[in-house]
Amino acid sequence: MKLNSCIAALPSGYLFAEIAKRVKAYSALHPDADLIRLGIGDVTRPLSKHVAQAMADAALGMSTPEGFHGYAPDYGYSFLIDAIIQGDYSSRGIEINPDEVFISDGAKPDVGNLQELFSADSRIAVTDPVYPVYVDSNAMSGRLGVFENGKWSRLIYLPCNAENDFVPSLPTEKADILYLCYPNNPTGTVLTFAQLKKFVDWAIEMDSIIVYDAAYKAFITRGDVPFSIYEIPGARKCAIECCSFSKNAGFTGVRCGYMIIPREVSGLCGTERVSLNRLWQRRASTKSNGVSYPVQVAAAAVYDEQGQREIMESVRYYLANAGIIRKGLAGAGGTVFGGTDSPYIWMQTPHRMKSWDFFDLLLNEANVVGTPGEGFGPSGEGYFRLTAFNTKEKTEEAVRRIAGVLAKL
Amino acid sequence: MKLNSCIAALPSGYLFAEIAKRVKAYSALHPDADLIRLGIGDVTRPLSKHVAQAMADAALGMSTPEGFHGYAPDYGYSFLIDAIIQGDYSSRGIEINPDEVFISDGAKPDVGNLQELFSADSRIAVTDPVYPVYVDSNAMSGRLGVFENGKWSRLIYLPCNAENDFVPSLPTEKADILYLCYPNNPTGTVLTFAQLKKFVDWAIEMDSIIVYDAAYKAFITRGDVPFSIYEIPGARKCAIECCSFSKNAGFTGVRCGYMIIPREVSGLCGTERVSLNRLWQRRASTKSNGVSYPVQVAAAAVYDEQGQREIMESVRYYLANAGIIRKGLAGAGGTVFGGTDSPYIWMQTPHRMKSWDFFDLLLNEANVVGTPGEGFGPSGEGYFRLTAFNTKEKTEEAVRRIAGVLAKL
Repeated sequence: MKLNSCIAALPSGYLFAEIAKRVKAYSALHPDADLIRLGIGDVTRPLSKHVAQAMADAALGMSTPEGFHGYAPDYGYSFLIDAIIQGDYSSRGIEINPDEVFISDGAKPDVGNLQELFSADSRIAVTDPVYPVYVDSNAMSGRLGVFENGKWSRLIYLPCNAENDFVPSLPTEKADILYLCYPNNPTGTVLTFAQLKKFVDWAIEMDSIIVYDAAYKAFITRGDVPFSIYEIPGARKCAIECCSFSKNAGFTGVRCGYMIIPREVSGLCGTERVSLNRLWQRRASTKSNGVSYPVQVAAAAVYDEQGQREIMESVRYYLANAGIIRKGLAGAGGTVFGGTDSPYIWMQTPHRMKSWDFFDLLLNEANVVGTPGEGFGPSGEGYFRLTAFNTKEKTEEAVRRIAGVLAKL
Repeated sequence: MKLNSCIAALPSGYLFAEIAKRVKAYSALHPDADLIRLGIGDVTRPLSKHVAQAMADAALGMSTPEGFHGYAPDYGYSFLIDAIIQGDYSSRGIEINPDEVFISDGAKPDVGNLQELFSADSRIAVTDPVYPVYVDSNAMSGRLGVFENGKWSRLIYLPCNAENDFVPSLPTEKADILYLCYPNNPTGTVLTFAQLKKFVDWAIEMDSIIVYDAAYKAFITRGDVPFSIYEIPGARKCAIECCSFSKNAGFTGVRCGYMIIPREVSGLCGTERVSLNRLWQRRASTKSNGVSYPVQVAAAAVYDEQGQREIMESVRYYLANAGIIRKGLAGAGGTVFGGTDSPYIWMQTPHRMKSWDFFDLLLNEANVVGTPGEGFGPSGEGYFRLTAFNTKEKTEEAVRRIAGVLAKL
């Protein structure tokens, strides 16, 4: 009985599991420590009352003959698909058809599962640093070769750092799939229309596909940054977009997201050109039974007037926290990026300290939990991620403590 | 840009999509037809009030600081894991550890995703007829060879039919993975302790793994039939068990299930013996963010006294329907199997009619939707599945109509 060695060969644990382990060990030794968590990207503010009430009503309705819902449509209820199209696309002048929207239990499963559509020998490109799921899910399927000296042998890395202003170069070798995430996790930086257009033009020319993770689009404040890759002409030919209710509506524990696969996006199966939309339909209807009905009702409530008002209150709250971190650390002599159109602040470690060392330092000296940049890829070394998802009070306190550590270095 | 040709090469649509298509076409031509659906295994009775109330309370609580829950533990909340262990295992004298339980959004995703742990050249065996997900998910990963004359070239089929009393023989060639589902979907038949023990002994001897789908265990009434494969000595070494809240608690639209992977179940990665429990942990934490909190609260409510009382009322209701179909069709001259410990009745088509022809006949002449046996595999040809999940009244009416069709043949 042989197993998938590619899973067993994955280096160490998933990043956040490793962080949890170190925090647990520290807490066991220091049970009274007042830890502040600016590490994992989990939200802290309660759900919108309006959205929670919609979910509760749907749940209770499930115990009545009129309100009961069995198997959901495989790709999502049309009431939610229509709300998404209207709220996120038509309203921006983007045309998306209902059969191009796929509701799921989150953007992480979507970006993790999507690679099943690609051939086993596809070449993958990612920006570096990067959200680990793009890499690990492809590694598990054996596409990335061997892991040596912190790098996968077949993965194409596009470094993003202070030197290039966190704007990746186009791949110089043939990449079949390019994962882009903007506003970016972990760096908190964005691409302008003009910068993103270069990637879309490249993908069309090279017959490549862009997987565009737009989970953080609700945080965009600048006018020259696209909310959707489909605001770029031609993107319907080459781009799949993944979105989430986790960060805009606080759904990390509710679980809902969606993926847009335009009919035009295609690739080769043998000599035949096949639509990825059709392929994903087959995959989804075989391996999933759709998303919980009360959850879909809750997601739809995000889009009505009251829902929008209530969720945007939280988004603004988190953006204000991001400003507190950005300004506070810059004022304390830190070098920081992101945090204006994103809940993430990307800071250079002081004196080019190793990022896991800085993690341990902040954990020990400031009782603040962040995320070491190296966990996001080789170019993340020397950087550190802080999130704006805690309370204003704890965020301010964390910044004070980190400033204290910086002052002593 | 090359795609996964194995998905594109899958024969026709997923079974239930094909049925939906034919029903839609019929309904378009006959908009006033009073269709009765005994086809897809979807439940119809509302959720237990108690369970729905628990979910609604949890949903509403999510809008308060005290009740809010962000990311769930990757493998499930311990309140649910403990309830499962107590309710489904300890109470039957089976020892399962909390880290051997994995909560998911359903048994279908679990049995669909589990194959990712197996090596690409693993040999798969299934009973025939079979729930299509076991086959299709492995076909998508390229393990089954080519599909010719209704069969996959590398898949090992274990026929189950009236001649062998629906008890499969042991595989005669080396099978790395054997999928068993009991009470069986689609045949509605069961294996006794003694019959299942033969498979467990075989798996241990052959270093094979049994994936045991126990989604229908709530329907077991006979005393000589195990509720869990772990009631068989040695099964902890070789068996993974998948369970669902869909059919016992009506969760087809709520989405929750769980999988048991004992620490002892292992296979080879190169020359190293690796625990499947550990491998699944890695897979789950990389590609999922756990299950919706209100859904897990609802699932836990299934296990308390009121929850059990209310859900078992529905199970008994469906079992009574199964009795109505079984006795009604037998009385009308039909040959029927299953339906005593299962919500499914498996009937031989009259005069060995092709099962899709019988499907069309019942749709046209009786306005009853069933599922053609051929959709479940080559040995399903000449059989037809009917489900007990409709109302008593509609079930009785459907039986009357089918009996009318049988009388005319």
